[in-house]
Amino acid sequence: MSTYRALEATGVHHLQLVERELVEPEPGHVRLRVEACGVCHTDVLSVEGLRPDPSRPIVPGHEIVGVIDAVGAGVTAWQPGDRVGVGFLNGHCWQCEPCRRGDFVNCLNQEQTGTTIDGGYAEVTYARASGLVRIPDDMPAVEAAPLLCAGLTTFTALQQAPTRAGALVAVQGIGGLGHLALQYARSLGYRVAAIARGREKETLARELGAHEYIDAADTDPGTALADLGGASVIVATASSGASMNPLVNGLAPGGTLVVVGAAPDPLTVSTAGLIFGTRRIVGSLTGSSIQNEDNLAFSLAHGIHPSTETMPFTHAMEAYERMLSGKARFRVVLDMSA
Amino acid sequence: MSTYRALEATGVHHLQLVERELVEPEPGHVRLRVEACGVCHTDVLSVEGLRPDPSRPIVPGHEIVGVIDAVGAGVTAWQPGDRVGVGFLNGHCWQCEPCRRGDFVNCLNQEQTGTTIDGGYAEVTYARASGLVRIPDDMPAVEAAPLLCAGLTTFTALQQAPTRAGALVAVQGIGGLGHLALQYARSLGYRVAAIARGREKETLARELGAHEYIDAADTDPGTALADLGGASVIVATASSGASMNPLVNGLAPGGTLVVVGAAPDPLTVSTAGLIFGTRRIVGSLTGSSIQNEDNLAFSLAHGIHPSTETMPFTHAMEAYERMLSGKARFRVVLDMSA
Amino acid sequence: MSTYRALEATGVHHLQLVERELVEPEPGHVRLRVEACGVCHTDVLSVEGLRPDPSRPIVPGHEIVGVIDAVGAGVTAWQPGDRVGVGFLNGHCWQCEPCRRGDFVNCLNQEQTGTTIDGGYAEVTYARASGLVRIPDDMPAVEAAPLLCAGLTTFTALQQAPTRAGALVAVQGIGGLGHLALQYARSLGYRVAAIARGREKETLARELGAHEYIDAADTDPGTALADLGGASVIVATASSGASMNPLVNGLAPGGTLVVVGAAPDPLTVSTAGLIFGTRRIVGSLTGSSIQNEDNLAFSLAHGIHPSTETMPFTHAMEAYERMLSGKARFRVVLDMSA
Amino acid sequence: MSTYRALEATGVHHLQLVERELVEPEPGHVRLRVEACGVCHTDVLSVEGLRPDPSRPIVPGHEIVGVIDAVGAGVTAWQPGDRVGVGFLNGHCWQCEPCRRGDFVNCLNQEQTGTTIDGGYAEVTYARASGLVRIPDDMPAVEAAPLLCAGLTTFTALQQAPTRAGALVAVQGIGGLGHLALQYARSLGYRVAAIARGREKETLARELGAHEYIDAADTDPGTALADLGGASVIVATASSGASMNPLVNGLAPGGTLVVVGAAPDPLTVSTAGLIFGTRRIVGSLTGSSIQNEDNLAFSLAHGIHPSTETMPFTHAMEAYERMLSGKARFRVVLDMSA
Repeated sequence: MSTYRALEATGVHHLQLVERELVEPEPGHVRLRVEACGVCHTDVLSVEGLRPDPSRPIVPGHEIVGVIDAVGAGVTAWQPGDRVGVGFLNGHCWQCEPCRRGDFVNCLNQEQTGTTIDGGYAEVTYARASGLVRIPDDMPAVEAAPLLCAGLTTFTALQQAPTRAGALVAVQGIGGLGHLALQYARSLGYRVAAIARGREKETLARELGAHEYIDAADTDPGTALADLGGASVIVATASSGASMNPLVNGLAPGGTLVVVGAAPDPLTVSTAGLIFGTRRIVGSLTGSSIQNEDNLAFSLAHGIHPSTETMPFTHAMEAYERMLSGKARFRVVLDMSA
Repeated sequence: MSTYRALEATGVHHLQLVERELVEPEPGHVRLRVEACGVCHTDVLSVEGLRPDPSRPIVPGHEIVGVIDAVGAGVTAWQPGDRVGVGFLNGHCWQCEPCRRGDFVNCLNQEQTGTTIDGGYAEVTYARASGLVRIPDDMPAVEAAPLLCAGLTTFTALQQAPTRAGALVAVQGIGGLGHLALQYARSLGYRVAAIARGREKETLARELGAHEYIDAADTDPGTALADLGGASVIVATASSGASMNPLVNGLAPGGTLVVVGAAPDPLTVSTAGLIFGTRRIVGSLTGSSIQNEDNLAFSLAHGIHPSTETMPFTHAMEAYERMLSGKARFRVVLDMSA
Repeated sequence: MSTYRALEATGVHHLQLVERELVEPEPGHVRLRVEACGVCHTDVLSVEGLRPDPSRPIVPGHEIVGVIDAVGAGVTAWQPGDRVGVGFLNGHCWQCEPCRRGDFVNCLNQEQTGTTIDGGYAEVTYARASGLVRIPDDMPAVEAAPLLCAGLTTFTALQQAPTRAGALVAVQGIGGLGHLALQYARSLGYRVAAIARGREKETLARELGAHEYIDAADTDPGTALADLGGASVIVATASSGASMNPLVNGLAPGGTLVVVGAAPDPLTVSTAGLIFGTRRIVGSLTGSSIQNEDNLAFSLAHGIHPSTETMPFTHAMEAYERMLSGKARFRVVLDMSA
Repeated sequence: MSTYRALEATGVHHLQLVERELVEPEPGHVRLRVEACGVCHTDVLSVEGLRPDPSRPIVPGHEIVGVIDAVGAGVTAWQPGDRVGVGFLNGHCWQCEPCRRGDFVNCLNQEQTGTTIDGGYAEVTYARASGLVRIPDDMPAVEAAPLLCAGLTTFTALQQAPTRAGALVAVQGIGGLGHLALQYARSLGYRVAAIARGREKETLARELGAHEYIDAADTDPGTALADLGGASVIVATASSGASMNPLVNGLAPGGTLVVVGAAPDPLTVSTAGLIFGTRRIVGSLTGSSIQNEDNLAFSLAHGIHPSTETMPFTHAMEAYERMLSGKARFRVVLDMSA
């Protein structure tokens, strides 16, 4: 095989199937045969032409599972045949100040898979070796894929704000991220509250691990959390600043709101609401490649599964629209073997 | 002596001199002869009738230094003759959940001196024993007073966000709080940046310890901090949410904005600005009584002095208006012995 | 009723049944009708006359569950009828430096129940209000009792050394403390290793939550842990310094050995073993009263149960010797209702 | 020039001057012209044949300042002409688990300069790029050299145990490490106690920043620290476990003993001494390359200088014996330009 098929985002709301030549991976990089690729809301940046350089076609997708078939110069830790994952951060440089401080997610020279470089809506893709994630043998590709971004993001978020054993931890939003966050929080021994809109999600929330359910369509979620004693941690997954604003008042003294959902509208908070209660708001950005391996191992150990809908690679536009509709339960994954 | 003089806030922008009967302190409380009381911007709440119960007259003032002359039942740790301070938090209850967790500033049953109970614009005041601060013998009352709130607030703020030795720490605002924050930050070994409006404050900022000066009237302070490599910590003292908004972009990866200035307008931040850079915003609320003792000891050891203008007690309205004018350099203190 | 029965330790290895007059609790204290009292290895200090003042008889026992029947002056947070627990630390003073810093376990003026003041081998006992622990209604006294010391000690120990989700956490010793530590570690989402002597304990260890079992009679436990990748945390419960020494080598880089078992022989460690690997050793002392409430709530939520053998109060000497024999599975509890 | 002179440790207590061929640096490595190299007590390992492979001659020295004159394949962050330092850790691999977690000092594939690979008792040496430290232009080589190991070790140690502003921090030993630790602790705003043997060191200790001096020849240092209120942190620099043992009792509640001096004899501590007081012992191993840059910047900013005695390169054996004698004040440095 000397060519592969890929879907390029070429304009606004458009994907085009192209044939590409296989090339050798650059130094420090590997080439992968893609097994599966999750569809994430961030794919909007590439598919709708909102990325930094929209004039250049790009292959979307950053929840990639595949098998290495070629390694570039200087890559010693990985070899052909290794089964690996690639998430939103495509691999760090080791050289910049954050890297030298061990803060790899904030690397100053890091591509974003599927946004600034080609991603996984393709039969083959390329990635920097430093960003690769070893996939456990017994984890199916379609299951691993959503864990690499939706999973990692919330797994790491909970660790950005360590708190006491059994504390009340709330998860705002039960979607691609939230349905995993609930499972993680429960497996870490917390008392878990789910916040979503509508009574019909309550049963599901409780199945995923929630002890408490707050219907944000019906009640102010900050007040509801305060009535439960206040949350030590809230993980805000909804891509809406407006929906996060009331949450600060639901934090217990010293509590932390962890923001993972990049929203078009800002977060607007009263300074007094932060000062009285010495509350905290922290941003959390996916995680490093080894945290992703921790995440996969934790998910395996605790029986944490993403809820997925799989579609063949060639149905990517349909998959993307299904994701956009908000009706997917909860993560759409392109399966290259289908 | 069986009576004392006090200034009561009785309406909007009004102080009235009254004579009051001395009474015995309640259980768990002490009575103080006031030596000095600082005038703080928070006094607006009482003087302008913005406090919770404006129908009841109240004595403003929460930077109080005095000498105990009577102790209530159950007070064993303090005795008449002890020289003590009282800050904004009037003493915690020991019984509520935050107190039982050792988080005294967030006590659920805590009066706010000069706002919810009578404060120090008076010859005599009363305070809960748990909130008292031992004043070093060799520290003058007019010097200790501003340290009890303006000082403690920024001293604690810097400890809310511990960072590495020699990191860049910025202080926004050079006023009552900021002029002390600069001194603390310098004495803790940080590289210090001051942010204020106008070139004329640069010399003073450097005298107070700043290595760098950013004129916010002339340049975006977030950009200026980023150009310096990004601040690990920014202490925001200005009572203006709008003035804090640009600061988040000046944080280094993993950096923290510590909010101490309660502002009428909200803080408005982009969620992406928090997520990319894993930045943090934390509220900090003055400190506990023993942190205040730490603060006084630290100030003595490092030659940290508030810059004050003193006035006699009976000139309190003039002192208050001087404070409001923003022209005081930097803290107005009522001196009971004047 | 104006008298109650108590067992006094009066010499070496001797308990004497006495009748005592009921008295009113001192200010700040309460009086309890004891429901159950656990027998802990620390009771050796009183029963064998090893306590600070062996000339004075003392009632042993510091895992006490009972019902308040009288409160002393100044006690407002508790009232007759409240069901409460008392652990090893009998209540802090609120006044000393550690208390003012919120570090209640290190209070400088704190009695040790059953060692420096009378404990729970009695129908009635007294305790300082600040040390009381609210017992959930639905938790039987004989089950709550061992959680108040053996449980709290290990529950807190795990929180002294927070580590990443799913990390390897080892528990040395499967006895009164260890059998609870294994359950806590598992419920917190860790990968759990049990270290004990003899193959016959492996099945039990796995039932209690261990993923790995290390037979210290057969293999060096430090080497065995290193072979598993190194433990992020080891909780050492055996009352033997010699048994702890090899554990340091089983710590992963940055890992922490938490010492909870006071041992007659010292811990002896190579400084190079600490430096290379930047390893840590920390002591952990039971916990505060609210941490004990956290502990009971966590135990209820996660179905964590002490394994107990109950005996009537009057069989206390037999219970004590059963505990000393090391044959109890795992905690002997005096049941006052038996 | 195609050859350079080096001093090889070839047996026990022996250095031999040899001529070596210049070779190209390996991939990922650089070649340096040495300007200066400090003499450290750890050099005993190579000079006395105590290193892992004593049959192979080795060039001692791991406090190296030099100028890059050649870079190996794949080195992009450094170029010929850059002035750099090399410390005890010769550069990490980026690939092992600790590296992927950002914990570079615990890299599993890291050479130790002058012990497992050739060091700086030579006109030329080689080093891995990941371990290089940028030297400020205005810092003389003979001054920078001792900061790279003796300085970094204590600079990092103080950051291993962050504590409150103005807390009591003790430094045990006033030698190569201790005389720098005192200066760092003072510049970080701590109240500083020095512990050494003999009254004659008191004046010097106070000049270096100590507020308190404890003569360990005359008094138990743990008791003396406890009398001062207890140390929040003690940095133990003496290469003697026996001298560290009494220090644990001098820790305040929650305090930390940071061990940096690898000693031939073990540290022996009572478990009760750790448990009561919830005290901590942590090992600290030099630091990462960027922490070394932080260290140099901090030293420049605060006027921290090592006290040095310089000797020409060819007098290395004499320099080594001077160091061993304990009479050097405080650090002997080989100056290649002398």
